[in-house]
Amino acid sequence: MSYFNQYKELIIRAVQALHDRSYFTPYPEHPKAYDESENEDGRNAFSSKMNHNFEELGVEAEHWLGEEVSPFLQTGIGIKYPAPGVSKLIERANNAKSWADVNIEERAGILVESLERVKKRFFELAYSTMHTSGQSFMMAFQASGPHSNDRALEAIAMGYYEITRFPSELDWVKPMGKFELKIHKTWKAMPKGIGLVIGCSTFPTWNTVPGMYASLITGNPVIVKPHPKSIYPIALVIAELRNVLREEGLNPDICQLAPDTVNEQITKDLAEHPDVKLIDYTGGSSFGDYLETLKGKMTFTEKSGVNSIILHSANDLDAVIQNIAMSTSLYSGQMCTAPQDVFIPAEGVHTPEGVVSFDEVAEKIGKAVTGLAGHPKFGAGTVAAIQNEQTIKRIKKGGNFGGMVVTEEITIVNPEFEHARTASPVVVKTKMENTEAYEIDYFGPIVFAVEMPDINTAISTAADLARNQGAITCLAFTTDAEIQKKIEREMNAAYTPVSFNFTGAAMVNQHAAFSDFHTSGGNPAGNATFVNPEYINKRFVWVGNRYA
Amino acid sequence: MSYFNQYKELIIRAVQALHDRSYFTPYPEHPKAYDESENEDGRNAFSSKMNHNFEELGVEAEHWLGEEVSPFLQTGIGIKYPAPGVSKLIERANNAKSWADVNIEERAGILVESLERVKKRFFELAYSTMHTSGQSFMMAFQASGPHSNDRALEAIAMGYYEITRFPSELDWVKPMGKFELKIHKTWKAMPKGIGLVIGCSTFPTWNTVPGMYASLITGNPVIVKPHPKSIYPIALVIAELRNVLREEGLNPDICQLAPDTVNEQITKDLAEHPDVKLIDYTGGSSFGDYLETLKGKMTFTEKSGVNSIILHSANDLDAVIQNIAMSTSLYSGQMCTAPQDVFIPAEGVHTPEGVVSFDEVAEKIGKAVTGLAGHPKFGAGTVAAIQNEQTIKRIKKGGNFGGMVVTEEITIVNPEFEHARTASPVVVKTKMENTEAYEIDYFGPIVFAVEMPDINTAISTAADLARNQGAITCLAFTTDAEIQKKIEREMNAAYTPVSFNFTGAAMVNQHAAFSDFHTSGGNPAGNATFVNPEYINKRFVWVGNRYA
Repeated sequence: MSYFNQYKELIIRAVQALHDRSYFTPYPEHPKAYDESENEDGRNAFSSKMNHNFEELGVEAEHWLGEEVSPFLQTGIGIKYPAPGVSKLIERANNAKSWADVNIEERAGILVESLERVKKRFFELAYSTMHTSGQSFMMAFQASGPHSNDRALEAIAMGYYEITRFPSELDWVKPMGKFELKIHKTWKAMPKGIGLVIGCSTFPTWNTVPGMYASLITGNPVIVKPHPKSIYPIALVIAELRNVLREEGLNPDICQLAPDTVNEQITKDLAEHPDVKLIDYTGGSSFGDYLETLKGKMTFTEKSGVNSIILHSANDLDAVIQNIAMSTSLYSGQMCTAPQDVFIPAEGVHTPEGVVSFDEVAEKIGKAVTGLAGHPKFGAGTVAAIQNEQTIKRIKKGGNFGGMVVTEEITIVNPEFEHARTASPVVVKTKMENTEAYEIDYFGPIVFAVEMPDINTAISTAADLARNQGAITCLAFTTDAEIQKKIEREMNAAYTPVSFNFTGAAMVNQHAAFSDFHTSGGNPAGNATFVNPEYINKRFVWVGNRYA
Repeated sequence: MSYFNQYKELIIRAVQALHDRSYFTPYPEHPKAYDESENEDGRNAFSSKMNHNFEELGVEAEHWLGEEVSPFLQTGIGIKYPAPGVSKLIERANNAKSWADVNIEERAGILVESLERVKKRFFELAYSTMHTSGQSFMMAFQASGPHSNDRALEAIAMGYYEITRFPSELDWVKPMGKFELKIHKTWKAMPKGIGLVIGCSTFPTWNTVPGMYASLITGNPVIVKPHPKSIYPIALVIAELRNVLREEGLNPDICQLAPDTVNEQITKDLAEHPDVKLIDYTGGSSFGDYLETLKGKMTFTEKSGVNSIILHSANDLDAVIQNIAMSTSLYSGQMCTAPQDVFIPAEGVHTPEGVVSFDEVAEKIGKAVTGLAGHPKFGAGTVAAIQNEQTIKRIKKGGNFGGMVVTEEITIVNPEFEHARTASPVVVKTKMENTEAYEIDYFGPIVFAVEMPDINTAISTAADLARNQGAITCLAFTTDAEIQKKIEREMNAAYTPVSFNFTGAAMVNQHAAFSDFHTSGGNPAGNATFVNPEYINKRFVWVGNRYA
């Protein structure tokens, strides 16, 4: 129980934070909060692994594989990971089921210790995330390091809370008139079985650790199947956890890495295996929909969707345009929270200086997006690199998408990486009728400025889009209290949260652990939420025994 | 908010009780705790409704229907209920969705008030439950009255807790180095849509109110589709709730009754309607399995299963036999918690007086079961009446079930109801190989005493049966600590709770609200639990808005 004692205060503080939903993190998000030497060490640690086998999982395997390509270098990073294969992975996970017998306090302590060890490698995580996902250094540091640890800690804390909220035993006494009926009772949270966590290529730890730690804290052994192009970051996290498990005399196969290649994927074989009872998934909708239909599994998905901006009126239109440009351009729109469509009434946008026409607003957005990408100092860091070259092809293929492209092709200068795979963001001005264009999730550097007959149609279109295609967020700008209420009511009815009048440092893209529930679970963008009580409770079964 | 203020203390006490899982009820379970006059009044209230229309729902409908038959009288009770039909029911439920705008405190207060009004009619509930389900007066009083109210209150309390555990708003402040980022946030629990609650014939309120109140406390309008043979008891509960809603100026269609007939059932039409998002169901497995496959619905089921007794050793075998006889005979085995199979090692049962052979134990069980049913004073009240004549036919058709019937046909004397539909309980002695007999759920007055090669086989067979056919409970008798551990481990692994060495007033059949989770949700006997957090959380979606 030593790790639990060590982290008890932190865990209790985390449980409190997720209930009061105030700002909380034990992991500072800025690189400057860490020792200067760590940056250099982290970069070297990653570089020295390139073109080598990733040995630190301590896994025996006949086959080693890996085909990660850096979107910044556009060359393979040459790291190979042990690939035991499906049957060995399942066999080893089954052999690690005694994890359920480790009590909740010990489990929590061990899992938090793994995060503390990961914390020491945030810079290595950042560089490996950059060179697999294409994120900028800053985003990679924050998303894969502190913010990812936050989400993992949140899952541990919610699990700790849910499992300890009922007593483990009790003498139950029922008055029966002339006598009392006494029964001793116990309650156990029985894990469901093997958990499979399927990662995505763009956020290899942030989207993986919630499911991984949620299944682990509830006593299930876990197999993590990362995207074949983004393995390193989560392999590092798993390696650290395996080290702690091993040191504690436990079976390290409580958490395993299951790497594969694009051409020989093992995801279906793992998902359909009868011993796999829990599936966490981040990725495209068609595979997510397939996973959700599998019988006898509890599936937690974050799939694709189309996030909208509703632009009605503004006190400071320039600040609003800047926020729109930033939220759509960050990491070239490869965030699940990035907006793609900007719905604007045909009459234009009301400002204190008068109405600004739809065309003018669309032009402003185009200019701001281009300005940001082409900015000599901030451009490269904002748009970062494109993870998958298919993303570029898909957008290039669209031509003018049946509308009018209001941005010009620009060169994005990345002084650090001259071969970075970048694409200049496209802003398309179009009309409401052009649903074939703006209703598709392009998950990349494209923004549709859509002219709507009026604000009511803008709102109902955004809500229908969320209801039918899914949406994780909505960004809205209005100075009219009634319109704001209407937006809130209609988007919320489609189970989509709204961020109102964000400017400056407030970004719709950011969902903070302990405060913002990520993905509502109520529309096609996914059926699960980081991290609500249901996200935990579905992973185990309460069983109560009684003793006369 | 007046009702909330009135019941605030009770609700908070209930929230505490369900978390500490100690004995708690505001509704005394014994009829003697109530005014003597209430009994007479309740009987008269029910009698005077016979052969009349059930008007008190205040529902307009062209069609009225009803075909309930008293298992004690074996005549129809002649009561007709308003049947608006599927499209009207859905339309009215959709018109009642503003229930979501009533805040959680008001909702809780109104729902508790409905239970307080139901409390005043516990005796009428008892008589109507007797004359629809065939339960004895005492069971009908307790199960449909206080115990049912307990379960409803438990659902209200869990809902109140889950929805108020996160703040409804907060100023979130994030330190950003040189400045602070301040965002105002709100969180709303958005209901999923219309809830459909499908009742069963044997426990018309106890099995219906948890889903009904769980959907209501979380803001969903509810349509209750009772079993066509057991409508009255839940119609009474719904009528009382509708009265409170009406008095509070709310739409009474927040909760509607949807009666139908055996030959023209509307359950599928309701369940498959796209506006129905939540389904609660108690009943047979095949229909439950169908409901669970419906897309776009959250389904909560309690289906059939086979509950086992494992009889290994005992300090007081007679007391054990008596407990087995009582648990299998109560309401003629028509309880979802009633055991059906008694697994006994071939070597016999160890007692302080020596080993008692399998044959002797089987004989003892047969004698005890027959003795109980034939008891001039307690027999009629114990076995009560058979709800559905098919139950008797099914068991009669089985003959000796490939084993040996160790009980003789006896007459059950019911001095009060000479036409009561009863069946003398059958005890069949058989062997492990005869799986075709004892692996079927007969849901009626039959007990299989099964000779097993050894205790380990007895345990693994009971566990496999639970895993494959489902089980809600297991009753086990052993004086050996190691065997006890093994039983617990193997049955719990099949997500089945075990009651050990129950004698006297401790009955495996009873699951107390606030303490015993009813149905684990982890095996085929059902996918939901009265009332765990998941039972509530799946009925709504957290949506968080942010305001700069």
